Amino acid sequence: MTISMSAVKERSLLGLKEISREEISSILDRAAYWESQKEKMSPVLKNRFVANMFFENSTRTRFSFEMAQKRLGAQVLNFAAAASSVEKGESIYDTVRTLESMGIDAGVIRLKPIGLLAELAEKVSVPLVNAGDGNNEHPTQALLDLYTMKQQFGELKGLRVSIIGDILHSRVARSNLWALKKFGAHVKFCAPPSMQAPELAEHAPYVSIEEALKADVVMMLRVQLERHAVGVLKSAEQYRLHYGLTEERAAQLEPGAIIMHPAPVNRNVEIDDSLVESDKSRIFTQMSNGVPIRMAVMERAMKL
Amino acid sequence: MTISMSAVKERSLLGLKEISREEISSILDRAAYWESQKEKMSPVLKNRFVANMFFENSTRTRFSFEMAQKRLGAQVLNFAAAASSVEKGESIYDTVRTLESMGIDAGVIRLKPIGLLAELAEKVSVPLVNAGDGNNEHPTQALLDLYTMKQQFGELKGLRVSIIGDILHSRVARSNLWALKKFGAHVKFCAPPSMQAPELAEHAPYVSIEEALKADVVMMLRVQLERHAVGVLKSAEQYRLHYGLTEERAAQLEPGAIIMHPAPVNRNVEIDDSLVESDKSRIFTQMSNGVPIRMAVMERAMKL
Amino acid sequence: MTISMSAVKERSLLGLKEISREEISSILDRAAYWESQKEKMSPVLKNRFVANMFFENSTRTRFSFEMAQKRLGAQVLNFAAAASSVEKGESIYDTVRTLESMGIDAGVIRLKPIGLLAELAEKVSVPLVNAGDGNNEHPTQALLDLYTMKQQFGELKGLRVSIIGDILHSRVARSNLWALKKFGAHVKFCAPPSMQAPELAEHAPYVSIEEALKADVVMMLRVQLERHAVGVLKSAEQYRLHYGLTEERAAQLEPGAIIMHPAPVNRNVEIDDSLVESDKSRIFTQMSNGVPIRMAVMERAMKL
Repeated sequence: MTISMSAVKERSLLGLKEISREEISSILDRAAYWESQKEKMSPVLKNRFVANMFFENSTRTRFSFEMAQKRLGAQVLNFAAAASSVEKGESIYDTVRTLESMGIDAGVIRLKPIGLLAELAEKVSVPLVNAGDGNNEHPTQALLDLYTMKQQFGELKGLRVSIIGDILHSRVARSNLWALKKFGAHVKFCAPPSMQAPELAEHAPYVSIEEALKADVVMMLRVQLERHAVGVLKSAEQYRLHYGLTEERAAQLEPGAIIMHPAPVNRNVEIDDSLVESDKSRIFTQMSNGVPIRMAVMERAMKL
Repeated sequence: MTISMSAVKERSLLGLKEISREEISSILDRAAYWESQKEKMSPVLKNRFVANMFFENSTRTRFSFEMAQKRLGAQVLNFAAAASSVEKGESIYDTVRTLESMGIDAGVIRLKPIGLLAELAEKVSVPLVNAGDGNNEHPTQALLDLYTMKQQFGELKGLRVSIIGDILHSRVARSNLWALKKFGAHVKFCAPPSMQAPELAEHAPYVSIEEALKADVVMMLRVQLERHAVGVLKSAEQYRLHYGLTEERAAQLEPGAIIMHPAPVNRNVEIDDSLVESDKSRIFTQMSNGVPIRMAVMERAMKL
Repeated sequence: MTISMSAVKERSLLGLKEISREEISSILDRAAYWESQKEKMSPVLKNRFVANMFFENSTRTRFSFEMAQKRLGAQVLNFAAAASSVEKGESIYDTVRTLESMGIDAGVIRLKPIGLLAELAEKVSVPLVNAGDGNNEHPTQALLDLYTMKQQFGELKGLRVSIIGDILHSRVARSNLWALKKFGAHVKFCAPPSMQAPELAEHAPYVSIEEALKADVVMMLRVQLERHAVGVLKSAEQYRLHYGLTEERAAQLEPGAIIMHPAPVNRNVEIDDSLVESDKSRIFTQMSNGVPIRMAVMERAMKL
């Protein structure tokens, strides 16, 4: 079966910035349906082939997608770019076109180069699902975050969400920002100057850590300190002191507030060890929710 | 379906030291059932998801587990810790909890840190199967070894088993020791001083290589000489001379004796090349037996 | 079910040099059948287990085989030799025998050492399919190349095929040569002196690049310049200038001629970027054709 290019685009999920609130709601609703199913497997994607193409390492996200795909009965092929491919000068574009030529029905893709995903989506004729592209978007992560918030608070409108950490390099922060604003949530950022993305300032204010703690949702981001070895960030301990969610800071959170994190966490850097599985934490719940979210996204991409 | 924590523990297989002879016998019997099946596949684990989590490399053991799982109709997801995960500081615990959150029904796990497996098993709510943890236990290897011995000798009681090589670092030696003793077999160790584990001396005597050859089963262990670059072990040739199963030594074996090795072998180090596939060798038989043994173990862990 | 050794050999595909034209035709015909099927999956290899054993990296070829195997309903296990296995001194032979012992019904194998594949095929009792061995043969690549040529020109007899590039190191060139000659095609080689294989000169003439362009099929090979850092080959630019398919050279091709390449391509080294997806190019068509070809090959190897 051939799908028209416009249908392909409607089935792709490149980011949340460009899709409508209704579209997002429909994915969240469908995820709720999948979560409610008693049977672990369904034949919805029987005889359909999907390639998980990871040009950037992430066994965790790949695992979540694979789980979702297999629960829907799809045939799954994993492709991880090995060092040798890079040596050979094999371009991402050629690889994606190659796998497309081999007859996959959809591709899940994670890659570093910014802007490449949009270009790929123009050129290939199968739906693509973004599993993280550079610092641009990570739509399924934000969808599972929204799902987790909705589960907790019923609705997103008016919800106060603080995102704390390396905003500059975070595709998670961006995808959450675009999606949350469509639903009328109030997003605040908190980051040291070197981790702020100036172009996002018009969409969400940068606030102090004290101010950021006044929220319904405190979303901590993973920091990669090797990128910022200067000033107050010169050590994990310094980062924790100024921007980490310590036990002391967690004690100041409002009674109904929850703690989120896209994982993997740096225990005792951006978040204290004892908080990861505390009552307020929804970190492992987020991971659980990733599967029904990705089932909804894969079904949307591939169902005949 | 939720399984109670005590049921989870009964379904886990962390080691052979702690489980009863009856439990071991029941696994061996079930393996015999699976070996006798004409059909290659059975739907026993249909719609069940298992994760093979290898934090230490072993495509061979992973392959054997995957074969067993797929023959039972399970959905299999492989997770191998890449270098990048380590860089990210992702802990084994967080990974296991993550995969558990995503909805696996059981996990097979191989890891290096000693004592971590028991801790994990306390904290996660799905059955775990030990595919090798540090130098502690490797229960499925010992089960397939026992199965191979029983196949050859009918029963284990009174059987004389010599285990030769790096006892100190060997989880295979330990799992075999604990299991064989439960069945009344007589275990002897043979190892150069630097490869002896003193705490095991009360369970099995250390004997000379000549004495070790007087046995029904001569089990050679893989040596990793890079760990022992001193004295008589300073070269592979020296090791072979003092502790290897050479053709000359093999000629002294009793008529009915068999040679075993957990593989992969270092040909012409711990065992001469010509012996690997000789009449007395059961090395590839052991590998064949690994599949029905792991079918029995996976069925025990996951069957509804 | 046990298959006799002679039947195993008939089901193996080690190279095209040794098999008959009729055998090749029968594979091409069966591939056409599979390409014509509307349904993506067939249960032809249901309950059959295949191991893809890659001792040399190639996610692309592995992916094509896996796609073919899964479309036929086979159970697929992937084995890629990690660095650690090499450190352990684990030999390819022992690994193949190990996977055979575990009960696979066929193995697809890629490896570097020349001559080892034939030796393996003598010793193991399951069919083996060559996915590339050293610079010897890459039969499924040549089969998909022939299939692509037949698709274009109807028949192979009398077809003028120029193979340009590193003939010396190319298993693709060799497999194509042996197969094309059986069908009465005229093969010409074009390569700088350091990339010529003298022993092939009696089978196909080495010609100048100008002469090579006079052909129905111009097949460019991937060059790995790191192997030839001398003289005119000291840079990619120099190679392109003397042996690359530039836009200028492509303009001289005959009207009905087609461009082929086994991929991955080095854009702007052996072929100009703009030609890769040009009208004359069949590069991505070749990749598409690889799947039905490998379905035919796997069916031949494994069907009960």
